[in-house]
Amino acid sequence: MTNHTPRVQLLLTGNEIMSGDTVDSNSAMIARRLDELAITVYRKVTVGDDPALLAAELTAMTADADLVIVNGGLGPTVDDLTAEILAGVAGVELVEHAEAIAHLKGWCAGRNLALNAANLKQAMLPAGCRIVDNPIGSAVGFELTVAGCRIICTPGVPSELRAMLDLIVADLANQLQHPVERNILRLQTFGLGESSAQQIINDHVPDWPPEVELGFRAGAPQMEIKLSVNRAADLPARQQCRAQLETLFGDHIIGEGDTLLAEQVLALLRERGETLTTAESCTGGLIASMLTRIPGSSDAFHAGFVTYANNIKHRVLGVPEATLHKHGAVSEEVVLAMARGALERAGADYAIAVSGIAGPGGGSEEKPVGTVWLAWGERDNLRTRCLCWPVERSLFQTMIAAAGLDMIRRLLLGIDEEPRYFRQRRAR
Amino acid sequence: MTNHTPRVQLLLTGNEIMSGDTVDSNSAMIARRLDELAITVYRKVTVGDDPALLAAELTAMTADADLVIVNGGLGPTVDDLTAEILAGVAGVELVEHAEAIAHLKGWCAGRNLALNAANLKQAMLPAGCRIVDNPIGSAVGFELTVAGCRIICTPGVPSELRAMLDLIVADLANQLQHPVERNILRLQTFGLGESSAQQIINDHVPDWPPEVELGFRAGAPQMEIKLSVNRAADLPARQQCRAQLETLFGDHIIGEGDTLLAEQVLALLRERGETLTTAESCTGGLIASMLTRIPGSSDAFHAGFVTYANNIKHRVLGVPEATLHKHGAVSEEVVLAMARGALERAGADYAIAVSGIAGPGGGSEEKPVGTVWLAWGERDNLRTRCLCWPVERSLFQTMIAAAGLDMIRRLLLGIDEEPRYFRQRRAR
Repeated sequence: MTNHTPRVQLLLTGNEIMSGDTVDSNSAMIARRLDELAITVYRKVTVGDDPALLAAELTAMTADADLVIVNGGLGPTVDDLTAEILAGVAGVELVEHAEAIAHLKGWCAGRNLALNAANLKQAMLPAGCRIVDNPIGSAVGFELTVAGCRIICTPGVPSELRAMLDLIVADLANQLQHPVERNILRLQTFGLGESSAQQIINDHVPDWPPEVELGFRAGAPQMEIKLSVNRAADLPARQQCRAQLETLFGDHIIGEGDTLLAEQVLALLRERGETLTTAESCTGGLIASMLTRIPGSSDAFHAGFVTYANNIKHRVLGVPEATLHKHGAVSEEVVLAMARGALERAGADYAIAVSGIAGPGGGSEEKPVGTVWLAWGERDNLRTRCLCWPVERSLFQTMIAAAGLDMIRRLLLGIDEEPRYFRQRRAR
Repeated sequence: MTNHTPRVQLLLTGNEIMSGDTVDSNSAMIARRLDELAITVYRKVTVGDDPALLAAELTAMTADADLVIVNGGLGPTVDDLTAEILAGVAGVELVEHAEAIAHLKGWCAGRNLALNAANLKQAMLPAGCRIVDNPIGSAVGFELTVAGCRIICTPGVPSELRAMLDLIVADLANQLQHPVERNILRLQTFGLGESSAQQIINDHVPDWPPEVELGFRAGAPQMEIKLSVNRAADLPARQQCRAQLETLFGDHIIGEGDTLLAEQVLALLRERGETLTTAESCTGGLIASMLTRIPGSSDAFHAGFVTYANNIKHRVLGVPEATLHKHGAVSEEVVLAMARGALERAGADYAIAVSGIAGPGGGSEEKPVGTVWLAWGERDNLRTRCLCWPVERSLFQTMIAAAGLDMIRRLLLGIDEEPRYFRQRRAR
């Protein structure tokens, strides 16, 4: 299998996946890691912990694929069948594997546990197999070549699989005689949809080079754009595509890799030694939570206020009762007063204030569900905007919290251009 | 297929699933809905948008299964192949289907759109197929029986699939000649692990009746326990099992169905016309966010404080500087003062206050990462506890936020018993 890109299939096992009690994210993880080597998974099969079904699938796969990755069934219980199935398909015995015993002993010792019979089952592996280290868990991985097809068995626990994939991917890269110099660039964006981004590119870059593969991965609140090339020689073309994306909608690009909006805002604040505070009504603490999920957030985020009720907006943030009475809680005047109150109480440099109608109740003809006022900026330079983003409550909260963070990001970067969602989500 | 429980396979299609850019949650949704009829999915296959692969899989499935559910590939673009593949496998033509045209016209009219060629493709369906209504999207579902195997094609958009499954499940229930009276009871719990719950049951209920199927679905922060029986006659046995679970760890059971901890806390507060406030350091707004994600939370949650920095704990919540200086931010004295400050400022009946070390940095010998002080209760009856829950930062925040809500739930329900996690997560 070393002289060409292997044809890969996945075999996933586990009753909890078949029943839907667990959503399988492992196969997506495997596919994304193999993509780093330009290796594509072309078929995957999932069955429960059933020996006959597993054996039939694995046998069929070995006839068709160059590489099969089996995921799951390495645990210590009776329904963990993978080693037994592989031994059967390969026509070899299960034998106690010294290297696996050593791994188990080390694992137990590190946890002050005694090695028990259940654990020892995890060292009974097909004769002749090669061990793949599990840097985290008790179950080692193992591989065996059957009828020219390489079969690698991996653990179902996602963190253990993640760690083991580092080893497997490095190993595969070494063994490819003509490795593809896969170069993947991932860009995180906020405020762009998959189809609108594609449309903008189609309209403005009709001669997009075919060697630069373009992919989208929509999430909430961020969307990832992936630019991949398979040869180092194509890196300049990729660089040019990136430059074109920057020109077309660079202000929507948050950063590379896995960068989160909150992470980027905190990094920008940290650079300047400045701080941010939040005054949240309809987002109810989500902006603060997004910020504090990031390690080290305490550098730049010291205080947040969740002022859900009108009297709290008054008591806690000093929003004048007359303003609340005259304009209503969802108004420009109120978010401005919330932002000022939070800045003063927190002694912060920047504030985000949000008040809106998350629904499903509380809408009116004039202010329908999805209406929201945002204020952001510094004490002497607060800006405001009214948007209407009528989606399901928790998605609304996620998108509006992100929009607030995005406006601070734009302010700190000196981006004057309005984001596309200001037009698309304009309030009536 | 009507005189016995059908043998079901799933065929999933989509390049975005194969590449790992999208995690497939649709097949879990399908499996869980079929489980309501005691119908099990025994095999699922996923391939990309490749006509030859799709046709081969579908042909093989019809030879083995009674029912195949195909998911994905119903859209208007060229890589949406499902109708074409099914027609090929069935040996029939693709024809314009009047009912599908009517659906498309209605769908476009409701959106002020003109019916275009791309949409019309969605009405070109295998001759003789039956339409399955799509209550949400433009793409109708369709079904055809091939070689005795019923094939139902469904859309890949999760919300559309969800709506269509209501119709499919109702239809299947009607057609089963001996429908299984599947009765599923789902209980939401907090503070129990899968293996510890199983162990408690093994130890205390050695004679668990085999007709009452027991399942666990671990999540963060909640774990679901599922009790299912296949005959109405077994309902008393299920009721008895439930009673035994209530005896063994009933104080950890939050509610039935999809009940969330925050939802239950809000319901208990609403019953009494009382309110809750939060003073969060290490959870950084997550408790507030969990509460405000629930529609109608404004009834019982008016104000929350995120006081991440020491000077903010002092300025915003009135925690004495001397207390902070003497005991440190992660201390019983400080969480008590935070709770009192929040109660006073919010005018609330109950408070949760949290201060801890979420990590990865900030730990010490005496207070390692994962150490957290909680205070909860009413002004004149505040309780406190120190826990050590050393897991990854965002999981720590999730579990501690939930623990805070859980303590209020227990207080409101008059549960005096300490939760199991107080022992398991005791601070040194």
